[in-house]
Amino acid sequence: MNERIRVMITGGTFDKEYDEINGRLYFKESHLPEMLSLGRSRLALELRTLMMVDSLDMTDADRDLIVEQCRATSESRIVITHGTDTMVETARILAGRVEAKTIVLTGAMIPYKFGSSDGLFNLGSALAFVQTLPPGVYVVMNGRYFEASHVRKNRQTGFFEESE
Amino acid sequence: MNERIRVMITGGTFDKEYDEINGRLYFKESHLPEMLSLGRSRLALELRTLMMVDSLDMTDADRDLIVEQCRATSESRIVITHGTDTMVETARILAGRVEAKTIVLTGAMIPYKFGSSDGLFNLGSALAFVQTLPPGVYVVMNGRYFEASHVRKNRQTGFFEESE
Amino acid sequence: MNERIRVMITGGTFDKEYDEINGRLYFKESHLPEMLSLGRSRLALELRTLMMVDSLDMTDADRDLIVEQCRATSESRIVITHGTDTMVETARILAGRVEAKTIVLTGAMIPYKFGSSDGLFNLGSALAFVQTLPPGVYVVMNGRYFEASHVRKNRQTGFFEESE
Amino acid sequence: MNERIRVMITGGTFDKEYDEINGRLYFKESHLPEMLSLGRSRLALELRTLMMVDSLDMTDADRDLIVEQCRATSESRIVITHGTDTMVETARILAGRVEAKTIVLTGAMIPYKFGSSDGLFNLGSALAFVQTLPPGVYVVMNGRYFEASHVRKNRQTGFFEESE
Repeated sequence: MNERIRVMITGGTFDKEYDEINGRLYFKESHLPEMLSLGRSRLALELRTLMMVDSLDMTDADRDLIVEQCRATSESRIVITHGTDTMVETARILAGRVEAKTIVLTGAMIPYKFGSSDGLFNLGSALAFVQTLPPGVYVVMNGRYFEASHVRKNRQTGFFEESE
Repeated sequence: MNERIRVMITGGTFDKEYDEINGRLYFKESHLPEMLSLGRSRLALELRTLMMVDSLDMTDADRDLIVEQCRATSESRIVITHGTDTMVETARILAGRVEAKTIVLTGAMIPYKFGSSDGLFNLGSALAFVQTLPPGVYVVMNGRYFEASHVRKNRQTGFFEESE
Repeated sequence: MNERIRVMITGGTFDKEYDEINGRLYFKESHLPEMLSLGRSRLALELRTLMMVDSLDMTDADRDLIVEQCRATSESRIVITHGTDTMVETARILAGRVEAKTIVLTGAMIPYKFGSSDGLFNLGSALAFVQTLPPGVYVVMNGRYFEASHVRKNRQTGFFEESE
Repeated sequence: MNERIRVMITGGTFDKEYDEINGRLYFKESHLPEMLSLGRSRLALELRTLMMVDSLDMTDADRDLIVEQCRATSESRIVITHGTDTMVETARILAGRVEAKTIVLTGAMIPYKFGSSDGLFNLGSALAFVQTLPPGVYVVMNGRYFEASHVRKNRQTGFFEESE
């Protein structure tokens, strides 16, 4: 019932911080451990940071690494934190190349450190869905789950929607 | 895929506020709409406040009302926000008296308004589990789900655990 | 210009926390160091915790201790964090018994840990006023300073006002 | 004792927000009213937004406008919120061109909306100093006040320091 879940961190808005010296957004380290502690999570999780990038800067090599890690890990349930801009693209690549695992990609529209983040809500949803959905690749945003092959990000509203 | 979910609010730590005039904790109105907005939820939800009480003050009549509402509502998926102290008791009563619906009880250890609440994480989890678990009554806390008949709150640690 | 300031901590709403196991408010340790760090304070401060009490529970002996500490300390500028309920009473006692020092009492209506505290604003004000006001005893709340002999807390509104 | 204070808003880090659609920082409207409400300010303030700019983008024409507004306003005590990068430059221009008024410039290193802002602390300090300092132009940061002619921002540390 409390099977171990792999959590792979790739960066994205989730983990952006404000650099007070130069006034720019940047990555330092992941806030996932802090968020899990705040959420009083008692799940058996294995966290690994694969990269810390804006998903617009994610390369083919980065995606190959994610695929490889999903295949290699012994856990059959995986959550991936990811920037929202290319989350759907990565989900589709994973759907074509990883089998027999439940993989959930999630992210945030507002950095966790900026106080009004959707990240904590999404993290709660993602960790719940990964425990109950059948094998497949899913995007979890806005309280919902979408199959990798039927989802798009609406760039006007920032919400995720079903696509054909 | 985006079936309507009923959300019943009963109070609990989730919704406690600090009264700055007399220095005591009290209930004003539910923070659920604000939390759902913060989480960018796009679920089709129907919210109803049944009561605003500390779960230690919940009476048999209060629990009868919750049972009745669960039976009467047309939705077959229901989330109930509830104080953690007697959440298990209410879950067991519901398990014996409501059939063919997926009911998830959740709450928080720290009030949402106090900045470091587990409430947003739990709300995300609860709304995800209610979409995917089969009919039954569940407690969702700490990222996990527990069947009503096999859960207890550990009063020393504040965590929920499986019971026999 | 950056003369050393003594800060005496006595508790009050400022430093209250929420005990998630029993659902009550309590004192653990002062949040002042964290607040000063958050405010990027570069003042030369000497912090000392004298007590951690609700000001309604403050005794004559407690007030004697505060008076004694104000007299004994080598700094001539002192900020005292204090519960708002009896802040005026303590200020008046100090005014009658300590001479030739600038003493500022301040506090908060909402605990700092509860996210929407007035504490950080009041702390900024108090540390500024203590640097510029002439010797005397003052209450600093709501962005204003009041002489100890001409201030009262309005218990209906929670605001401090001039009294005759 | 509660003389009216003019507050002029010019933007700066203080008021930056995160645009969740394009992931960039931007200005929408000032958070000053919200911050004053949070701080339970009871001061008689007149707020006016002069511009909403990053202080690196502030032009000579912008500074002329600030000078003009300081001269024209009937209040003799003025707080100006300003980006930290060129705060000292604006302070020096004001010092040469406005007489017989107490003018305090303040700002923040972290946007108020990002949860861990020094803005609330600085605002409390600035409003206190402006009530008590003699006529002149001052920069208020890090709990301290500096005369316009003797201050610089240390770009390595982000702290303000006395200069010769």
